[in-house]
This record gives sequence, C-alpha cells and structure tokens, in this order.
Amino acid sequence: MLSEKIVAGLTEQLISHLFVQVEASGRHVHLCRSDIDQLFGAGYQLTRIRDLSQPGQYVCEERISVTGPKGTIKNVVVLGPERKETQIEISMTDGLALGIKAPIRQSGQIHNTPGATLSSEKSSITINQGVIVAKRHIHLHPDDAARFQLQDNEIIKIKVFGDRSLIFDEVVARVNKNFKTSVHIDYDEANGCGFKKDMLGIILK
Amino acid sequence: MLSEKIVAGLTEQLISHLFVQVEASGRHVHLCRSDIDQLFGAGYQLTRIRDLSQPGQYVCEERISVTGPKGTIKNVVVLGPERKETQIEISMTDGLALGIKAPIRQSGQIHNTPGATLSSEKSSITINQGVIVAKRHIHLHPDDAARFQLQDNEIIKIKVFGDRSLIFDEVVARVNKNFKTSVHIDYDEANGCGFKKDMLGIILK
Repeated sequence: MLSEKIVAGLTEQLISHLFVQVEASGRHVHLCRSDIDQLFGAGYQLTRIRDLSQPGQYVCEERISVTGPKGTIKNVVVLGPERKETQIEISMTDGLALGIKAPIRQSGQIHNTPGATLSSEKSSITINQGVIVAKRHIHLHPDDAARFQLQDNEIIKIKVFGDRSLIFDEVVARVNKNFKTSVHIDYDEANGCGFKKDMLGIILK
Repeated sequence: MLSEKIVAGLTEQLISHLFVQVEASGRHVHLCRSDIDQLFGAGYQLTRIRDLSQPGQYVCEERISVTGPKGTIKNVVVLGPERKETQIEISMTDGLALGIKAPIRQSGQIHNTPGATLSSEKSSITINQGVIVAKRHIHLHPDDAARFQLQDNEIIKIKVFGDRSLIFDEVVARVNKNFKTSVHIDYDEANGCGFKKDMLGIILK
C-alpha cells in the first residue's frame, strides 16, 4: 500500500516536471483601429516585417514614442494585428523612467490602468488607460495542456536554470488552440533570471 | 515509527520556513585607495552621508560616472569604506546600456571580469577589471545562521510573495559576525519579483 503511494507520488512528480521554451518579451504596443488612424492616418495598415512565435502575431515596421510624466521611451515596437483596445506593455524599469506606475496585469485587462502619450512622426495622442506590466504567463496549445495536465487560468510554477536560477511562482496558464506553447516573461524577469535565448524551463505544479 | 518520521519531517519544514528582510541594491562602486587618489586627489577621504544596513558600510557623497563601449551611466553612488580593490556593481540592464558583459559574481571575486572608465568631475581612470553583477546573497549574523541551521557559503532558496511571487534559487549564504541578516538582490531581480520596501522572504532549504 505504502509502495503504491510512493510510485503514484513519483509518477506525479515526473508528469509535473517537463521542459518548455522560455521567451522574453520586450516593451511593445498593440494599437486599436482609431489610434492607428490618428497616429498614422485614416485607414492606415500596419506593415508586417516578422512573425512572432505566437501564430498570427507579428512585429510591425512602425515605431512610436511613449511618454509619461518623467520621460519618453522612443522607438517602441508596434505588434500586429490591430486590437480592439490599445495596450502598452512595459517593464517596471521602463515605468520608473516614464514615471508611470503600471500594474501587473494579464494582457487585455486594462481597466483602471494608467495612460500615456503615444507619438508617431506624424502626430501624438494621449490615451487614458492601457499601460500595463505583463503578468508572466505560459501560452499552451491544448495538446500540451492535456499532456501537462494543465487547465486554462491555472497558476503554476516554472523553474529556470543557470547562475541566476529561480522558480517563477504565479505563472498563469493560458490555453488556446491558436497558441504555441511557451513561457513569456518580461525583461526585468529575464535579467533577474539570467535569461539566454532558447532557455528552457520546467513546469512545477 | 512512521508518525515519528512525519513529525520530524514537519519540524524540519518549520525550521526551514523563516522570514528574513529582503533589500534591493542599486548600482554602486567600491573604490580602492589609489583610485580614490586619482579620481578625487591624493589622500582624499570619502564623505560619509548615510549608513547602510550592513554595519560599517555607508553611502558617500561622492558620485562618479561609469562608461563602457556603448554608453555612460552618470551619478553612480560610491560606497564606503574604501576597499582593497575597486569593484563596480551594476545590473544586467545597466550592462546592456554600457555595452559591458559583466558576469554574475560574489562581491570580491573580480578575477577575469571586464573593466570600465570611471570619471569624477576632476579626472578619469580606466580600470581593467572589476565590473560585476552581484550574485544574489543573504548576509547572516552567526546567531541567525545557527537559528536557521545555515552554514557559510551554503546555497539556499528564498521565496518572496505578491503578484510577481517567486523563489530565488542559488542564494549564497554569507555568515559573518559583522553582518546584519538580510537578503540582497539587485534591481533587475527586484523589478522581476515586484519588490517593495520592507519586503520579507522565507528561507527554503
């Protein structure tokens, strides 16, 4: 009876220790139709230059400046496609430079977040909300979610290795058939954990 | 017999789960006598303006600029007292701005590390080594080390809480009778874990 339990425990451990790709996301903006119109001209279409790891998401040629009470960050990349609402994702380090106290939020949850001024070469707009620090998360394809026995919105841990090895707690699992499985952290987290390209993590439930 | 083991296991767990103060260290330099002479004048004495949490360590009025191949960071604080060897502690974010690939090292371990140019208002010097990213560590007074059952140089884990909760792995315990017990992380790690002043951590062995 006891040995059965031990075996069951070991199996659980094995299932819950699995490698996933870790990616670091730099600061970027997603723009809504009306903000694209105002920044780049009515009906302007964003220019795709490179696909991102998440299917359908891409880097655009367009760059904008983000300005807060304390400073400006230039040359911030615009990611496509356009979204229902404009969202600016920065690091806490960026927030200090801009003087914007952005909360840690999941993408899309921009209610009650601070705004900023966005500028293209042509014009500027001030948005009232939309600046967030992205909450660390794992994109999961449903096949991987099933294999790892993870549910959408489940909170898991991810361990990374190296001389700044650490275990990220509070990683939100987001399951969607359009996702490629990978962990997304921001550059503060990346620097804090000694991130290197093609770094792998292990899922700890 | 089994229940005794369970109780022993629980006691061990309780001992290993203890709160400690977490502090974030900003970029700073420690200067040796000859570098002080060259930057500020022969025989110059550093000006103490505020004590640090570690007994005997203090913030100086003096500020210097640190320059690497890609940029300069101005207004870097000098910490006293003077040391046997000059050491510049930056974050990985700083390293990117400076164009200096600083390794993660314990304080004092500056063999084979990159150099930088240091400038005061009076003069500049170029040092051949001494730029590091500080390896996260816990300063322990021997009384606390005994209470927590930790040895000098032991590697432990520290868990911190909040919406960027994580477990720092690879935390070096440094035990010295001159230390006040506290965990030191840098600003990348601080931003990566949602650091707030007076944050507490839990020791996990």
